[in-house]
Amino acid sequence: MVADMTGKSKLCQQIEENVNWLSQFGGDEKEGVTRLLYTEQWNAAQKALEEKMKGLHLKTYYDDVGNLFGRLQGTGSEQQVILTGSHIDTVINGGKYDGAFGVVAGIIALQYLYAHYGSPTKTLEVVSLCEEEGSRFPLTYWGSGNINGLHSKSDAKHVINKEGVKLDDAMKQLNFGKGLHSEPYRTDIASFIELHIEQGKQLEMSRCDIGIVSSIVGQKRFTVSVKGESNHAGTTPMNIRKDAFYVSCKLAKAFIELSEKYHNALYVTVGKITLSPNAPNVIPGYVEFTVDIRHHEYEVLQEAEREMKEIIKRTAGDLEVNIDCWMDEKPVAMSEELSELSKIISSEKNISSRELVSGAGHDSQVFGRRVPTCLLFVPSQDGISHSPKEFTKGEQLEKGVKVLIELLYKLAY
Amino acid sequence: MVADMTGKSKLCQQIEENVNWLSQFGGDEKEGVTRLLYTEQWNAAQKALEEKMKGLHLKTYYDDVGNLFGRLQGTGSEQQVILTGSHIDTVINGGKYDGAFGVVAGIIALQYLYAHYGSPTKTLEVVSLCEEEGSRFPLTYWGSGNINGLHSKSDAKHVINKEGVKLDDAMKQLNFGKGLHSEPYRTDIASFIELHIEQGKQLEMSRCDIGIVSSIVGQKRFTVSVKGESNHAGTTPMNIRKDAFYVSCKLAKAFIELSEKYHNALYVTVGKITLSPNAPNVIPGYVEFTVDIRHHEYEVLQEAEREMKEIIKRTAGDLEVNIDCWMDEKPVAMSEELSELSKIISSEKNISSRELVSGAGHDSQVFGRRVPTCLLFVPSQDGISHSPKEFTKGEQLEKGVKVLIELLYKLAY
Repeated sequence: MVADMTGKSKLCQQIEENVNWLSQFGGDEKEGVTRLLYTEQWNAAQKALEEKMKGLHLKTYYDDVGNLFGRLQGTGSEQQVILTGSHIDTVINGGKYDGAFGVVAGIIALQYLYAHYGSPTKTLEVVSLCEEEGSRFPLTYWGSGNINGLHSKSDAKHVINKEGVKLDDAMKQLNFGKGLHSEPYRTDIASFIELHIEQGKQLEMSRCDIGIVSSIVGQKRFTVSVKGESNHAGTTPMNIRKDAFYVSCKLAKAFIELSEKYHNALYVTVGKITLSPNAPNVIPGYVEFTVDIRHHEYEVLQEAEREMKEIIKRTAGDLEVNIDCWMDEKPVAMSEELSELSKIISSEKNISSRELVSGAGHDSQVFGRRVPTCLLFVPSQDGISHSPKEFTKGEQLEKGVKVLIELLYKLAY
Repeated sequence: MVADMTGKSKLCQQIEENVNWLSQFGGDEKEGVTRLLYTEQWNAAQKALEEKMKGLHLKTYYDDVGNLFGRLQGTGSEQQVILTGSHIDTVINGGKYDGAFGVVAGIIALQYLYAHYGSPTKTLEVVSLCEEEGSRFPLTYWGSGNINGLHSKSDAKHVINKEGVKLDDAMKQLNFGKGLHSEPYRTDIASFIELHIEQGKQLEMSRCDIGIVSSIVGQKRFTVSVKGESNHAGTTPMNIRKDAFYVSCKLAKAFIELSEKYHNALYVTVGKITLSPNAPNVIPGYVEFTVDIRHHEYEVLQEAEREMKEIIKRTAGDLEVNIDCWMDEKPVAMSEELSELSKIISSEKNISSRELVSGAGHDSQVFGRRVPTCLLFVPSQDGISHSPKEFTKGEQLEKGVKVLIELLYKLAY
C-alpha cells in the first residue's frame, strides 16, 4: 500500500480519519465522547454511518431496536451471514475507540474486500450495535442481546433509568420498537467477528499487536451487608463494640486474598463501599460493599463463592452479615477454529499475536453463546479505556484491520 | 423528702419537670431537641433560664459571648467563685439531657441550698454555657473556651459555617460580642463542677448510679490517604494492581488491632471512608479514611501514632500513603480532691459510685486545665446520646443532683 509523507499507509490514514470522524458525534466538553443509547448524538452517529455505508455499495437497514446493518450480498445460495462489527454507544465521557473502532473497521474491511475482490460468495454484514455499555439505562448488551434472544423488545417497558426515562419511550421517540423495521432476533448468522481495543495492558506489556481472545471471563457480583451497632467512638469499650467497618475490612481483605489460591487468575475487586453514619467519631453501625469476581472457569467462580460464605461464617462474630449475588454470568469460549485461523493469518502477515482471556465483557460473549465467534484485540495505550485518554496508534489499528480483512476474505470468498 | 403517688420524691419531680420544660425550646419535628448556638431556639432557652434564675433569688448576667450566669453571693470576703453547670446547645436532633441536665441540676441545687441554708459563705454560680457541641459552627467549647482563654471573642471573625454564616455575625445579631456584657475570660473561678449524662454504658453495665470521672481522654484524629491506581476490574491482573482499598483495609485492620496492645484501653475508630471512583467494577484508585484514637495517657497516644506510621511503612508497598493529624488533644485529669469528696458523699448517701475515664469530650476538660474540676455522670439508658432516644430515669437524675447539692454545700457553706 502507498504510504504518505508521514510514513503511514493509505489504509492507516483511512482508519484514523474514520475513527476521528465518528468521534465528532457525541464529542463532549471534556475532550471525550458521550454517545448514549437513543440520544440525539447517538442518532446522528447512526444516521451518518448509514450514509457512509450507502456510499460504499452496502445495502443498509435497521432492525427494530436500532442496530444498523450494512450488507454485502453473497453470490452463493447460502442464506447464512458472516457478521462483523461492534457497538456505537459509549460510556459517559468515554474515548473514541471503545466499540466505535470495531464498527469503523468492519465498514472499511467490507469496502476493501468489495473494491479488491467484488461480491463475496457468502453474504457479509457489518453491524453498528445500538448499545453495549449500560451507561444510560440499567441494562447492557441491548443490541446484541436482542439479536440473540437474551433481551426482547418488550423488556423495554420495564426498564427505567435514574432520570425517570423509560427505555421504551426513548426507543419509540426515534421510531424504533414500533414494528417499522425488521425484527432484531436472527437465526441466519453463521459467525460473528469483533475487533476491539483491549482495555488492558497485556498486549502492551508483551509487545504484541493482536490479542486473540480464547474466552471471556465469567463474572459474579455481590453486595455484602454488615450490620453492627453504631456507637460513640469515645464511650464504647473496644470489647463490646459491634464495629461493622472492622468486620468489613477483615472480610474484604480475605476475599481479595482468595485470588492467590487460584494463581491470581481469579480477579477480586471490592470497588464500592458505604458506611453509616460515616462520621469520624462514630463507630460504623452498618456497612455495605460490593465484590466483583471474575474467572474463565465457572467452577472456580462457584468455588470462590462458597469460600466467601465460609469466610463470612468464620469472621462475622455476633454481627449480622448477608451476601447477595446480583450478577452471575458464565464464561464464554470463543470459536477455537476462528482463533486458530486468526493466529495463522497474523503469522502469515508477520503481525505478532497472542492468546488471552478477556476480563471485560463484550458483545462477543452474547454472540458466542449461539454462534462461532471471534474476538480480536488491538493494544490500548497504558491499558486505559472509558476515558478521553483512550488511545491506540494508527499502525496498530491498521494491523487489526488487516487481520480482520483477511479473516473475512477466507470465510466469505 | 415527700413522695407523690408515683413514689417519686418532690425533688425528682422537680428535676423531670425542669428537664422537660427546657426541652420545649428547640423541640424539633423528629421528637428531639435542636438548639444550636445563637439561633432563635437557643436565645429563647437562655431567656427562659434567665427568668427562672431571677425568680429564684439568683443575680443573673450574661458575658459577652452569651454564657448565662446565676449568682448566689457568698457572705465571706473571698472573691473566688464555685461554678457549676453545663452547656445549653445541642447537636442536631439531639436529646433533652446532654448538657441541659447539668444546667437544670445547677439551678435546682442552688435553689435547694438557698432554701435550706440561706446564703453561702463562698459565692456560688450556675452557668448555662453557650456552646459545646460544634453543631452549627466548626468549633467546639465556645462557651467554656472563652471563659478559660482557649478561645477569644475575636476568633469569631474567622469562623464561617457550611451555610456561609459567620460566627461573628450570628453572635452580634443577638447583641453579644459588642462589649455590652462582661468580658468572658475569668480568673475568679475556684472550681468547676459539672453533672452530665454518661453517654456510654459503663454505669449501666456495672449497675452504678454515679460515675466519678478521673480523667477525660486525650484524642488524636487523623486522615489517611492512599493513592493507588484506578483500573478496570476485569482487565487488570492482580499482581500489577495498585488497589487503594485493599491497602486501606490492611491499614484500618492493623490500626484497630493496635488497641489490644494497650489492654483495649486505647480506643481506635475508623468511622469515615471515601473511595474513588467508588464503582463495583473499578479498582479504587484513591481512598481517604479517618482514624480516631483516644486514651487517658498522652504517652500512649504518641506511641500509637508512631506505631501507625510504622504500620504504614510496612504495608504501603508501592502505593503512596499519607497520614495527617488534624486533632491533637491531651488528656485532662479531674481534681482528685473533688473526686474523693464525691466518692465519700455518694457513700454517705448510699448511692453507688465508681471511677471512670470519660471517652467523650466535655466542658470540664477546658476548665480542668486551669482550675480544680469535678465531672460527675449519671447513667444513660442503653448508652444512647445525641439522639431523641437519650434517656435517664428521674430517680437516677435525682441521685446525681443530691450528690451535687452536697458537694456544693461542703465547698461553699
